[in-house]
Amino acid sequence: MESISKAAFRRLPRYHQILSAYEAVGREYISSRELSEILEINETLVRKDMADLKIRGKQNQGYSISALRLRIEEFLGLQEITEALVVGGGHLGTALATYPGFEHYGLKIVGVLDSDPEKIGTRIGGHQVVSVARLASIIQKKNIKLIILTVPRDVAKELTEVAVNAGVLAIWNFTPCELNVPAGVKVRNEQIIGGFMALSHYLKNVGGAAEENGD
Amino acid sequence: MESISKAAFRRLPRYHQILSAYEAVGREYISSRELSEILEINETLVRKDMADLKIRGKQNQGYSISALRLRIEEFLGLQEITEALVVGGGHLGTALATYPGFEHYGLKIVGVLDSDPEKIGTRIGGHQVVSVARLASIIQKKNIKLIILTVPRDVAKELTEVAVNAGVLAIWNFTPCELNVPAGVKVRNEQIIGGFMALSHYLKNVGGAAEENGD
Repeated sequence: MESISKAAFRRLPRYHQILSAYEAVGREYISSRELSEILEINETLVRKDMADLKIRGKQNQGYSISALRLRIEEFLGLQEITEALVVGGGHLGTALATYPGFEHYGLKIVGVLDSDPEKIGTRIGGHQVVSVARLASIIQKKNIKLIILTVPRDVAKELTEVAVNAGVLAIWNFTPCELNVPAGVKVRNEQIIGGFMALSHYLKNVGGAAEENGD
Repeated sequence: MESISKAAFRRLPRYHQILSAYEAVGREYISSRELSEILEINETLVRKDMADLKIRGKQNQGYSISALRLRIEEFLGLQEITEALVVGGGHLGTALATYPGFEHYGLKIVGVLDSDPEKIGTRIGGHQVVSVARLASIIQKKNIKLIILTVPRDVAKELTEVAVNAGVLAIWNFTPCELNVPAGVKVRNEQIIGGFMALSHYLKNVGGAAEENGD
């Protein structure tokens, strides 16, 4: 099994985004220095990440952007399809179920569930909305390992339990709840408000000195 | 100006979420060990973060949850109101404009803008949708410092330039674009796909050894 540090692992999505953006404008190579400046991290750290990914740069050119992007995709398993259910068909669930580009990363939404009788049977992003009462049976029937949770706070824990008991191994959690799951099940908490917190701090301190120390 | 490390800074939203969750169920104290286990980081690091925040624990009890939460809110400036415009009234923009709980963190959405003539004039989350053509004038009139960008990729850069020229200092970027902004303007890239990448890696390696090294 391949292994890199947790901190490096957390940087991979950003690397991937930067590489994709540069590739889209026709760039072929990027230097560790450029990457370090965009990510605002030490260049040594970028070089270490690249070494961990077993990516080598060329003298005076840097890293091949497409090779590095593909290496990250391979490492993260993005080239294989992952099927997922969106649980909760509110605004956020709808946004995620219709998000353009997920399939580009191997993420395929195969169903949307909701508890609202007025929503059940309507279509969201090409999917007919199904009752959450059928969550377990759909997970089992389709052998789903990932759910995207966008339900209200008061039902998040209950539906998590149902999903895990039905065989789900990963939960992409967009609710503000801390979910308790058994060992072997991975939760990714998507704290939308976290991004605002960083900006809030910046706005409240604009005009002061640099607002943060280095890493 | 107060200052903590960037890495510690990035942990504050997670601390805040955990503290809020524990507070909601009536807990009063939390230990550095519990925090370290939930965040999957070293206990020494938690203690250092608390020391940086100038928060002291009590022997055998740990940290006061409410005091620590308030300290984080104070540090991040969440107790003052930040007014923001949502630029882009699609599913994601609508989800953000109607997200329950933003005001709890001092984030107040004061307007929603879109370019679609069919959307302009309709209501999203209590706001009458306004044409993006009015972006600069609204920013100036309301003295807005933060925009939440959820527009399609092809107009992201142009609207960023308009907003920055009109006086915006912070951009919460939900588009997949890398935005170029002048010094003094802060961009927070919200890469929704990043969360999936972590889960994808997990799902593709389930059954193997621990998938990551320590920090």
